[in-house]
Parts: sequence; structure tokens; C-alpha cells
Amino acid sequence: MQLGLVGLGKMGFNMRQRLREGGHEVIGYDPRPDVTDVPSLAGLAEALATPRVVWVMVPSGPITDDTITELAKVLNPGDLVVDGGNSKYTEDGKHAELLGEKGISFVDAGVSGGIWGLTEGYGLMVGGSDEDVARAMPIFDTLRPPGDLADGFVHAGPVGAGHYAKMVHNGIEYGLMMAYAEGYELLAAEPLIKDTQAVIQAWTNGTVVRSWLQQLLAKALKEDPSFDAISGYTEDSGEGRWTIEEAIRHRVPMPVIAAALFARFASRQEDSPTMKAVSALRNQFGGHAVKRVSVSG
Amino acid sequence: MQLGLVGLGKMGFNMRQRLREGGHEVIGYDPRPDVTDVPSLAGLAEALATPRVVWVMVPSGPITDDTITELAKVLNPGDLVVDGGNSKYTEDGKHAELLGEKGISFVDAGVSGGIWGLTEGYGLMVGGSDEDVARAMPIFDTLRPPGDLADGFVHAGPVGAGHYAKMVHNGIEYGLMMAYAEGYELLAAEPLIKDTQAVIQAWTNGTVVRSWLQQLLAKALKEDPSFDAISGYTEDSGEGRWTIEEAIRHRVPMPVIAAALFARFASRQEDSPTMKAVSALRNQFGGHAVKRVSVSG
Amino acid sequence: MQLGLVGLGKMGFNMRQRLREGGHEVIGYDPRPDVTDVPSLAGLAEALATPRVVWVMVPSGPITDDTITELAKVLNPGDLVVDGGNSKYTEDGKHAELLGEKGISFVDAGVSGGIWGLTEGYGLMVGGSDEDVARAMPIFDTLRPPGDLADGFVHAGPVGAGHYAKMVHNGIEYGLMMAYAEGYELLAAEPLIKDTQAVIQAWTNGTVVRSWLQQLLAKALKEDPSFDAISGYTEDSGEGRWTIEEAIRHRVPMPVIAAALFARFASRQEDSPTMKAVSALRNQFGGHAVKRVSVSG
Amino acid sequence: MQLGLVGLGKMGFNMRQRLREGGHEVIGYDPRPDVTDVPSLAGLAEALATPRVVWVMVPSGPITDDTITELAKVLNPGDLVVDGGNSKYTEDGKHAELLGEKGISFVDAGVSGGIWGLTEGYGLMVGGSDEDVARAMPIFDTLRPPGDLADGFVHAGPVGAGHYAKMVHNGIEYGLMMAYAEGYELLAAEPLIKDTQAVIQAWTNGTVVRSWLQQLLAKALKEDPSFDAISGYTEDSGEGRWTIEEAIRHRVPMPVIAAALFARFASRQEDSPTMKAVSALRNQFGGHAVKRVSVSG
Repeated sequence: MQLGLVGLGKMGFNMRQRLREGGHEVIGYDPRPDVTDVPSLAGLAEALATPRVVWVMVPSGPITDDTITELAKVLNPGDLVVDGGNSKYTEDGKHAELLGEKGISFVDAGVSGGIWGLTEGYGLMVGGSDEDVARAMPIFDTLRPPGDLADGFVHAGPVGAGHYAKMVHNGIEYGLMMAYAEGYELLAAEPLIKDTQAVIQAWTNGTVVRSWLQQLLAKALKEDPSFDAISGYTEDSGEGRWTIEEAIRHRVPMPVIAAALFARFASRQEDSPTMKAVSALRNQFGGHAVKRVSVSG
Repeated sequence: MQLGLVGLGKMGFNMRQRLREGGHEVIGYDPRPDVTDVPSLAGLAEALATPRVVWVMVPSGPITDDTITELAKVLNPGDLVVDGGNSKYTEDGKHAELLGEKGISFVDAGVSGGIWGLTEGYGLMVGGSDEDVARAMPIFDTLRPPGDLADGFVHAGPVGAGHYAKMVHNGIEYGLMMAYAEGYELLAAEPLIKDTQAVIQAWTNGTVVRSWLQQLLAKALKEDPSFDAISGYTEDSGEGRWTIEEAIRHRVPMPVIAAALFARFASRQEDSPTMKAVSALRNQFGGHAVKRVSVSG
Repeated sequence: MQLGLVGLGKMGFNMRQRLREGGHEVIGYDPRPDVTDVPSLAGLAEALATPRVVWVMVPSGPITDDTITELAKVLNPGDLVVDGGNSKYTEDGKHAELLGEKGISFVDAGVSGGIWGLTEGYGLMVGGSDEDVARAMPIFDTLRPPGDLADGFVHAGPVGAGHYAKMVHNGIEYGLMMAYAEGYELLAAEPLIKDTQAVIQAWTNGTVVRSWLQQLLAKALKEDPSFDAISGYTEDSGEGRWTIEEAIRHRVPMPVIAAALFARFASRQEDSPTMKAVSALRNQFGGHAVKRVSVSG
Repeated sequence: MQLGLVGLGKMGFNMRQRLREGGHEVIGYDPRPDVTDVPSLAGLAEALATPRVVWVMVPSGPITDDTITELAKVLNPGDLVVDGGNSKYTEDGKHAELLGEKGISFVDAGVSGGIWGLTEGYGLMVGGSDEDVARAMPIFDTLRPPGDLADGFVHAGPVGAGHYAKMVHNGIEYGLMMAYAEGYELLAAEPLIKDTQAVIQAWTNGTVVRSWLQQLLAKALKEDPSFDAISGYTEDSGEGRWTIEEAIRHRVPMPVIAAALFARFASRQEDSPTMKAVSALRNQFGGHAVKRVSVSG
């Protein structure tokens, strides 16, 4: 089918290719002239036959907001917008309403798989009405990995459900990565273990902990056995934070995913104000001759 | 080759079968008459040609200790004992020494895969001398999963290294399970998500979080969508505790795996003394007319 | 000075008494006829000379919203409203704006001390303009504990700063209580310790961990040495949740306070869905004869 | 009474002074000639009338071991040794046995209060027989803070109980310090809060979180409002590690104290191997064109 695709970055670029290889006619728009197929969003709208389906694949937040606001202007009643970026699920309702005022439908789609999606397919979690999801189904079907539909695609619920599922997926991802990483650090610290990479490599088959991330860890260690070229500074893109916010809202204890999130925050601090305060306290009671503040104030 | 196998429980029973299907002559000993091939450890020793290889697959702790002590009596110099159970790595040195005094060699083998090992193969992490490991290699080769040797088997280092690697493997496993489980609880708490099982099923292909455990979670939810038949009471078999002890010894921060371990401890408490104390404190300052203990004591 | 006081619950009732004992004329309003001094908020407004100062001491959330909305109607330009409840700091701006439209000033006041405040005085953290804070200063001065002003009172910043400081205060409180409680549980578990209460009592003087909460713990244990009469079910009143939300907003790692919050959530669950999922996973790989879902989906 | 005191460092030096001011005859030994009263442990033994009481106040571990081994040689049956250092409680049994073989008694004493103990008194937790504790009671009575005996001293149980109680005390201390420190960091990050020190100062009186450590934090911030002169690098002296080991042994969930311990470990790492691994994983799936390791291995 015909699809408009807004955003041809790392994800969108690959998706355009996978969709074209799957037989779809994809017209891509991106502000960068070297990758775009049309000069503008208005140009994209012109190039597509109505009723249109336009997939938005841009950074979440203001850029997604602006894109959807702009699309609301250039599209027509009966068109459908799919937000495939990592928008917070609470944004989906607003976007659906904005578009809905113009008679334009909305579906949110969580997309997993990173750079491997081009060849492996993308895990998809979508939210919206049955009708709207059905309309974009040929696109989902090409993007998703081969095999049973239910193993790589879910219509998770109404608008917002797709991004909610993706948010939780990413929260889990934080926990998984941290679990493997903690284990790696311990193995690397233990002199009995002669080759940490070999141990982690050996876990890729037959073990309980085998996984795709675990394979990537073995691969990363093969490329750089002591991670000499890698800094511990670790960004987070929002889903981990939102997951904990949701855990708080639903009163769900989430010690593992929260610990993984906080470790990322800490990794980005040159020095920790918290630990400075702990250190200052130790100095106060443990060592220096200081004037006393009375206990009873 | 010929192998003596001590312990024909859930793991050993399956291993005997896999090894026999792989062409090995396995003589198994177990105290239960209905499964054993020989009436005693002494009988096992008699039935095996020297130099013998005997694989011990019994619960870690006293039963492993007793078994190895007994084997030291009935085996001969030049024999080899493999401990495939979940012994603490610090036990391995003692067992090697005990056997070594009789001229018997020792290899420790961490074995992963659970009940699936019979058909999928077992992930193996072994510790010992090159010579001893080489001697048991035909057995390892049949037990391990098909594919590249390095993907399912590692000679991790000297005696103790195999169980060390397995210990860390299991510590990671605690963290992974908890990460998935926290995510599951949040999904199940969110009304937007219409079918939690379907979401987790959809993660089995193409996503970043896909793994063997994740597939098992999807499967478990298919069998019991609300886990109505399952209690949250969760045992731990030692490796998680030892992992944190090792983290402390090596000064490795391990917030995620520790949180996963503590959650298991908590799951086994009818009521939490810690939370009783927190509750008591809230009562003290928040609400009840109580007689005051002065601040300055 | 003259003060209107809305809300004569556990906190407000005591505060009226302390203020009256301090020489202020307090006119209290509460919907319960047996404690109120006036029949309505309108009656409160009538009873006070202008320019009025009205202190709101009701549960945060809708009741505070309604109270302030109502006060905006019955008060006059030049009056001042102080919100002494545990409102979320983000509410303060809205309340200030609502009142400001009528020319009414607003100060937010975090109040600590619980039931002990009546006799000990209340720790106060306030937010607002210098002028508004100065106007309510005679009230603050009577409510706060005796001693140096700076040791029991702070004008923390503009509107919102008082509740922000109180929120962090309560977040810390969660962590402190949990630290003591964990230590209590360990002491109680150790047979060497013959009398847990006596140990904690002995910490009330001279030790590094001595504190008001620690004294209350010793006191609570004296009253009920095994906390037999106390359930571990522990409520949270919002500030802990908001503290973690703020930590996330500011990217501040907060493992201890988050762990304390999650422990409260967990204490209120009959059984943990997370641990059911962990348990289900253990069953899947460890024990039961189940049909296999293939790894590659 | 007469007391031999071994170790005149930061703690022992002050204790000698407090005891002398309390009317005791203290003969101190320290390898540093400028502070010692006698030239050797043998000299100390000679200088004391039998039956002797000797208080050991040296670093835990090998130095305490050596000191007690040496004392076993120079003391006589009927003498009493008190270990007031921060020995691990599991050492106490060994030390008691070693001394017991010579007919020498042993008491372990946990001592809290740091440099403030000189003037404020030391919180004391002791383990041993009733008879032995009674014998050293005059010393305990002078060291402990004034006020009720039960508020600053506890005979916690048999040998080992004193150090056990002190270990838990210090574990709690880690949690408390971290809770305050996390709150401090959040306050400092929030622009609404105009003066973080003033807020924390205002908590020293009347609030629920007031404590001795909290006063020290206010004091430390007054001396150095941004902790510019303080590094976050934070040592740990063993009790926190042992507390978590004991929690694991007793299956006590201890998320807060463990998080506080791990934060110290992390504070001492230039870069975190764990976070390097997390970062490496993000690179693997998120961004770089890398050759694929197949999932099914």
C-alpha cells in the first residue's frame, strides 16, 4: 500500500527500506534534502492519494507535537496518522484529539528492535480502534518480524496502549541490561574467571539467561574485551523515567527497574552530591575537631 | 564413554537419558531403588572400569559433601569426579583437596537449562585443569546444546571457576526474572492494556527484550492468565545469596540483583517485621495519644 | 493576632490550642459541629476583622482545592491564606493564582511534628513573598518550637518552596524509618541479641544513630516488644511518591527513598503479582513437564 | 578503678582522657612513644595490678588479632580483656576462646559516638557473661553518656552480642546518612529552594526527621554550603558489609541499607564497569552498524 513516512533518521530510514522491499510505495519526508522524497509535509500530503496513511517517526516531545500539529493542517478528514516514535502514552490522547477535530484518525505504535529491525523485523505494539489498526495492518505486517503474528505484534488496546506497552518494554530493558551488567562486573572482578567474554559467550545457548541482549553483550565484549573504548556515561530516553512514574501512580513496587534507572542518573554525574553529603557526615562525626551543635537545638 | 552418575533426580535423570541417547554408557546411582542402576556407591565403583569418571548431581551442601567423602573411599587414584550440582564455589577447593589426597581428580561444572536440557542441551561452565576437563569432554560435548562449542560451553578457569560462573549466571537470572515480573505487574495494573498476555507474547520476536525467560513468561501467562494458581512465595536456592556475598567481597555495586534477592526473602514472610516497625513509628508520631519519651534522653 | 483556622482535625485542633495558649485569638472552622467555632466558611469570614489571615489545615487534594476555592469567594482583597496542609507543591501555584485573581495573598507552609507539635512546637517550612510571610510571622512564631528561629523555621523561597521542603522532609522520613526498621528486623532475628528493645533503647543517647524517630522506635517496642498488635500494612500519604517523581524530574538518583516507598506499596499487597510471575517462571524452567515454546518464536 | 588501655588513636586517646577525668587510673599503651604510658604490652601487664582489666581499642582485623594473641601471653588467669574496637562479631568467639584457654575472660564492646564521645559520652553495647560485664561496669559507667543507664548502655547478650549490636547500629547509620543525603541533593537541585542549608537547619528542631546526624548535616553545610571541598569518594569500614551478609544469612530483606552500601562502593569507582556494559549494550542495539550474531546461536 501507499504510505507517507515522516522522519528518515536511524529508525525511519531503515523502515522505509524494509517497507519498500516488502512491496509498499513509501514516500518519505525529512528536513534533510539528501534523504527526503518530498520537499515538505505539504508536499507529502499532495503526493499521497486520499485517504492517506502517514507514519510519524520523529523524536518524541516537541518535534512530534509540531509534526502532528502540522499534519492536522495538511491532511484531510478520513486520513490516518500513526505515531511510531517513543511518545509518552499520555501524549497520545492529545494527539488523537487534535487530529480528531479535523476528522483524522490516530494510532500509536511502539516499535522495538533498533538497528536490527531492518533485517529482523520490528516488534510492534499498537493502540487505537480496530478499524484504524486494520487499515494500517499491511504496513505492520511488513515491519513485524516473520513468524506468527502474535509473536511480534499486538493490538494492545485503545489509543495510548501501544506506547504504554512500549514504555513498559523499555523499562524492563533497563532492568535486564543492568542485571547482565552487574553480573559482568562481578565476573570481571574475580581472578578465578580467566576469560569473562568466554563465559558470557557460553551463556548464549542452552542457559536460562540466554537472550538477545545477552548475545549482544557477548558480541560487545568480543569487540572490546575490557570496554576500554566505552564510557559508563549512560543516557536515558524517557521510557524508564515514565515507567517508574507509572509504577508510582499504580502503587506497583518496582525496585529493580528503579535501581537501573537511578544507576543511569548516577553515571552522568561527575561527582555525586549525595555521596559528598555522606562523606561530609562521616567527617563530622568521625574525625575532625569541630565545634559542636547541641543535640537539642 | 563410560560414566558413573550419582543422583537421578530431576536433573540427573534427564542427563542420564541425554547421555545414553548420545551413545555413552551411563551407570547411575540413586538411593531410590526404582531409578538406580546399582545398589550403592561401592557398587557403582565396582561397575565402572578404571580410570573412572563419576559425575555427582545431588543437592549442594551436606549431601554433596557426603557423596564426595564416600567417593573418596570407593574410588581409586587416577579417577575423576565431576560435581555438576549447584555447590558454592568455595566448596570446590575443599572437595578437590579431599579427593586429591587419594589421587583422585576433580572438576566442577555449572549446569544450566533446567528441565529443558534433556531436549535442548545444557549450558555448561566448568572449572579444573586442562587435562581433567579434556578427559570429561566427551560427556560435556553430549550434554551441551548443539551448535558452536563456545556458545554453550566454557572452561572458565581452575577448580571453582565453573561454579563461580554458574553462581553469577543465577544471580543474573534473579535480576532478569524480577525485571520481567515488575513489567508484568505494571501492565496488568493499567486499564489501557486489554490483554497482558498478548503484549508479552508479542515481545517474543523482534523486540529488544526477547529472551528464553520472556518466552516462558508468555507461556506461563497463557496457561494461567492471572497467575491465580500461583503463589508469590518464592524460594531461593543459594546462588543469589552467594552472588551478593561475592559482590560485597569484591566491592561491586549490585543494586538490581540484590533487590531481586530481597524481594524473594520478603515473599516468604507472612508479615514483615520491618514494615511493622515502620507502621509502629507512624503511629507514634502521627496519631495516638502516647506518653512522651524526652528527646534528650 | 487574630487567625481563622479551617480544619480542626488531629493537626488543626492541636494547633488552635497551641496558638490560643500563645495568646492569639483563633476562630476555627470545621464541618463537625462539636469542634467548630463558626457555622461556615462564610461565618468565619464574617467573624474575622479585615485584613484577614486564614490558615487552611485540611487534607491535601480535592478538600484543599474546594476550601481555597470557597475562601476565594468569601474573603476580600488584602486577605491572606496560608495552606498548612500537605499539598503537593505544584498545587500551590494554582491556589496562589486563584486567590490572586481576587487580590488575596497566599503562603504555603509545610508543618512537621505530628501530635507532638502541641507541646514541642511544629517545624515549619514556608513559601511566599517576604511581605506575606512577615504578616503571618506571629503565628509561625507561636507554632514553631522554642529556641533559635533558624532551627525550627525557614522561609524556603517563593510560593511552593514550603511544601517542596516539606515533601523532601517526608521523603527522607521514609528512608530513615526504613533504615531503623531493617536494623530492628535483623536484631530481632539474631539469637545472640537477648533483648532487642534494650539495644534500641540504649541507642537513644550517645550514639551516632540517635534521633527522635529512634526514640519513638524504642518507645514503641517498650509498649509492644514484638509488634504483635501491629500490622505491616503501611499507608503513604503522597509526599514519598512526589519525592521520587521530583527525583526523576531532576535526574537525582534516589535508591534509598525509592526502596522505602516501594516497601510500603508492597506491604499493602495481599500477594505480589511480581513475585507470582517470578514463581511462575521458576516453575516453567525448573520443574514441571510443560510443552515447549520454541526460542525463535 | 585501674584500667589498661591498648590503642591511643582517635578513639582511645579521647577515652583515656574521659576515663581519667572520671577518676580512673588508666595506663595506656600505644606503639607511638609520644602518647604511650608504657613501652610495651608486657610493660602494660607489669604496670597493672592483678586481676587486670585491659581494654583493646585498635583497628579491627589483624591488629586486633595480634593484640589479643599477645595479651594472652602477657596476662594471667583471672584477667579480663575488653575488645572495644569494631571487630566483626564472628571474631569474638575466637578471641574469647584464645583467651579462655589461658583463664582470661573476654567482653566485646561496641562503642559509638566518634570524636564527640569525649564530651558527650559513648553509646555502649556489650556482650559477655554477667560477671565479666559487672567487673568492667565502672569503666562503662564513665564512658557512657550521662542520664539513664538504659539509654546509653546495653548488655546485649553473650560474647559477640555487643559487636553484633554495633554492626547493626552502623548498618542503620549507612541508611540514615544516605536518606538525608538524597534529600539534600534533591533540595539543592530545585530552584524554588533558595537556601538548602537554611532548610536543613530548620529541621533541627520540631520536625520528625530531626536527629544528631541531621544536625551534623546542617553544620557541615554551614561550613561548606556546596560541599566544594568534599569529594564523594566514601570509604566503608566493614560493618555495612557485614550487616548485609547477616541480612542474607537471616533472610532479612534489607533494600535500604544495601542500597546505601552499594552507593559507597560506586562512589569509589572511577568509572563503573556495570555502566560501561550497559552503555555497550545500548550501542549494540541502538546505533552502530555491527555484524549480527544470530539469535538462535
